[in-house]
Parts: sequence; C-alpha cells; structure tokens
Amino acid sequence: MSLEKKSQNKAFDGTLTKYSFTSSALGGLTANLNVFLPGSASSSNKVPVLYYLAGLTCTEDTGAQKGGFLSAAAKEGIAVVFPDTSPRGAGIAGEDNDWDFGTGAGFYLTATKEQYSEHYDMYKHIVDEIPAVLEKADLGIDGSRTSLMGHSMGGHGALSIYLKNPGKFRSASGLAPICNPTECQWGQKAFSGYLNSPSEGRQYDSTLLLSSWPKDKPLNIGLDYGTADQFYKDGQLRPEAFDEALRDIGRRDEVLIGRREDYDHSYYFVSTFAPEHVGWHAKHLTA
Amino acid sequence: MSLEKKSQNKAFDGTLTKYSFTSSALGGLTANLNVFLPGSASSSNKVPVLYYLAGLTCTEDTGAQKGGFLSAAAKEGIAVVFPDTSPRGAGIAGEDNDWDFGTGAGFYLTATKEQYSEHYDMYKHIVDEIPAVLEKADLGIDGSRTSLMGHSMGGHGALSIYLKNPGKFRSASGLAPICNPTECQWGQKAFSGYLNSPSEGRQYDSTLLLSSWPKDKPLNIGLDYGTADQFYKDGQLRPEAFDEALRDIGRRDEVLIGRREDYDHSYYFVSTFAPEHVGWHAKHLTA
Repeated sequence: MSLEKKSQNKAFDGTLTKYSFTSSALGGLTANLNVFLPGSASSSNKVPVLYYLAGLTCTEDTGAQKGGFLSAAAKEGIAVVFPDTSPRGAGIAGEDNDWDFGTGAGFYLTATKEQYSEHYDMYKHIVDEIPAVLEKADLGIDGSRTSLMGHSMGGHGALSIYLKNPGKFRSASGLAPICNPTECQWGQKAFSGYLNSPSEGRQYDSTLLLSSWPKDKPLNIGLDYGTADQFYKDGQLRPEAFDEALRDIGRRDEVLIGRREDYDHSYYFVSTFAPEHVGWHAKHLTA
Repeated sequence: MSLEKKSQNKAFDGTLTKYSFTSSALGGLTANLNVFLPGSASSSNKVPVLYYLAGLTCTEDTGAQKGGFLSAAAKEGIAVVFPDTSPRGAGIAGEDNDWDFGTGAGFYLTATKEQYSEHYDMYKHIVDEIPAVLEKADLGIDGSRTSLMGHSMGGHGALSIYLKNPGKFRSASGLAPICNPTECQWGQKAFSGYLNSPSEGRQYDSTLLLSSWPKDKPLNIGLDYGTADQFYKDGQLRPEAFDEALRDIGRRDEVLIGRREDYDHSYYFVSTFAPEHVGWHAKHLTA
C-alpha cells in the first residue's frame, strides 16, 4: 500500500501530482488521487491539508482542473488532496448503469449490501486509508491538521465525515452539499442500494448527525448553495433542513450558510466560491 | 447571423453564456462560443474584451472551465470571449482522423485548399465574424477595445492575428504559443493541409510577421512558456526564434518573454499564469 507517482505538473509554484495505490478499503482495486503541494511544503516543513471530495460523475481530476482551489491553497500554504468518487472497475453487475449510483457515485459510505461490501468503502478510503498512505509517503503533509470540503455528493461526504468524527478534523465545508440525504432521492437511492437497511443511512446524514455533536466542541462548518441550482430546487440538497437542525441544537450562529443568488450547481459556482472556502479552512488549519 | 443563447451560468458575479450562431465564415455550420461578462457590463456601460483562443483538441469550453481567467476578468471588469478551435461537422473526408489537424485544429487561418476552403476560415471567424455578431447583439462589449490571448495553437492565433492587423488590437499574449509555425511539425502539417501552397503559411507565422510591424506602433506582446513543456522541448513552440526576430528588428525590449522553470504545457500551467495575463491585458484595454 504505497504510492506510485503517475504524473506531476507544476502549478502555482507548487506541484499537482497524480498517485495511484492498491486500496484495501476498495477491495484491492487501484485508487487514484491528486495531491497539490504548495512550493513551501517539505518533510521538514509540513503543511496542513484540505481534502476536496467531488460530486456525482466526477473523478480525482475534476476539482483539480475546474475547481479553482489551487491558487488559494498555494497562497495559504496548504496542501489539497483530491480523491476519486468511487472504486473503478469493481465489476459488479449494474455498477455502470446509472450516473447517480455505482461508479462515480460512492457516496462516501461503507457499503454493507453483499455485492457492494467488498469494494465500496469510500468512507474508510477517505477517513483512514488515504491519510495513512500519505503519512507513510512523507510528502510534507501534516495529517494532524486536516479539513474537509466537497461539492454536492462530496459536500455530503465532507460534512458527514466531519460530524461523525468529533475533534478529528479542523473544519468542513460544502459547496451545494447534499445536507439531508435520507430525505432526498439521491441519498435514498444510494442508501437503499449500498446498505442492507436504508435506516443505516441515518448515520451518514449530516442533518441527523448534528444532534449528537458534542456540546463542548466548536462546530466549524460552512456551506454555500445557489438559488438557481436545479438540484437545490428539486429538493436534493435541503440546506433548510440542516439550518433547522442547527437551530434545534441552538448552534445556528456557529455555522456559515451562504445563499447565493442566481448561482447554479456547476463548477462555475464552485470556482467562484473556492477561494473563500480555502481561505476559511486555512484560518482553522493554521490557528 | 444572430446569437442564440444555449446556456448561462453565473460566475464571479458575472455571467458565462454559451451562444451559437450560423457562421458564414465556417460555411454555414453552427459555431459555438462562450462569453464571460463581468457583472458591471451593460449596453450603457460597455466593457473591453479579451479573446481567448484555445489549443489543439480544445473547444469553447476548455478555457472557460480550466483556464482560470474568469476571476481576474471579473476583478478587472473586462469581458472574455472563448471561441471554438475549428468548424464542427464539415463532413470532409479525413477531417477527424488526426488530433492535430481538422476538427479541433483549425489553426486560425483561411483555408485555400479546395476541400477545406468552404468551412475552414477560422481567421475570418475570429477577426471579423464574432466581433460583428457580438456588436449586433449589444451585450455590453466595447469592440473598439479588444485584445487577444491564447494557448499553444491559440497562442499562435493570438500573436499572428495581432501582428497581421497593426492597430486593430490593444495587445496580444501567448501561453506556450506556437511562435514560428513554418518551422515546426504542427505548423507545417496545418499549412500543407489547409493551404494550396505551404508558402502561404508565411503570412500566419508570428516570427516572420515581426519584420513588417510598423515602426511607429507599439508592440504590446507578451508570452510565457515552461521549460518542462514537452512540446517546447520537441521544437513545436520556438520562442527563441521569436526572440531572435525581435532582436533583428531592434524591439526585443518591448516584449515580455517569460521562461518558466519546470512548468509544462497543461492547463495547470495556463491557470497559474492566467491572472498575470489578464491583468497585463487589462492595463492595455483600460489605458
């Protein structure tokens, strides 16, 4: 389980490197990821790290190429890790039939249904496996200072992983995140497809997870969504439910929720707010 | 010949709009282009415009999605127009066989060879047709203040179109531009394929065009290339020939040539230097 360098591009005075490794969380399949390291990073000068989890149909390249994160990360002196969004080539019947389930749609959970449990553990892949592989590779990343961000399905991943692991991550943010997956079509499809019982999905629902967040821990969460986002309008994102759950626990004022007029779900929206998200995480990562 | 709006995304407080129109320069085919307008632009507050010409295999989307130009353009208050790189669907035998000729590789020239002359006039498309269509649409663009930039084949387009039209454009810049196409494989293939005589290609060669630039006109040109760019190393770009031609006319000091250590030909390179290019053009466009 060690990294193999596939390619490297200089970018913003740092490097964007594509690695692959044999993933046990993904049942022995080859996993790809991109790692941006600012020019200042080295094993003697380790930098904090921000994970970017991408959305449905995306890969490890999407955020690196279209997200507009690298410039701000270089300026802040933080690394950005771009994992893939699912295992690739598991060979499960029907895996490639839908754009919102299976390949490109791992949903950042641990599959329990028999046909998916061998390969679809994107939760473990992100939370344990990639950090361990990066630590071993000694690239100049300080894994003790880690934050999470993501878009759409990846926003769900970032928020839910943060909320499931109090104290482990410095901050989490979502760009048009799926906030309440048990109550939307995308989430229901994923949970009923990957999990033995859809009720298992409750443990991955950021809105439901809020009630178990420790009272003594700061809640460093931010999110933005656009009012012209068709998926928002279709009820897939449900930021209002998240907002309400925050009010229920009396912590609405700790969380930034940006309602952005006329923005949609595309990477034009993502790249517009990327520098703000990176800057906000950098404050938590370098505090 | 009027614009049809295909889609619109809000971006950086402005709009990125995809249009199509029936192009006479491209022999009646449908042409696509993206137009970024900063939020400040309107028919009563027209803004200057920067054209971005993309490279081989690219489309009107590549620069808009991966180039990192929009943020800087929004900040400077200038529009950016992203044309396609060739006609699409002309139906010429062999047109789609190669990645560096035909579809996606129009080379910003006026084809004279019989089978290409009906559809392949990307020169006219960029220089005359798109500006006229935009003017007619009254989007808030001031066509009297226009600059050109481009990547690779598009860098060739930007520099050669600027040099062929003294006084028409405010400035031109290239990111890893093909500077001397008559002396490189890409250019020779394009000129021998599109033109009745390859010697016609001399009129599109930026290095050769320098000698006819008027002595009394400022030469507002800048370019950047990376030392790890495989196409540079293979002799496709030849910035040294351009440099030498500038010295021959005694105007080397008017032109910015950035040799960027370890950068390659990718959009990671383009997006790194995009803000500098936009900022430099903005100075000329708002002077």
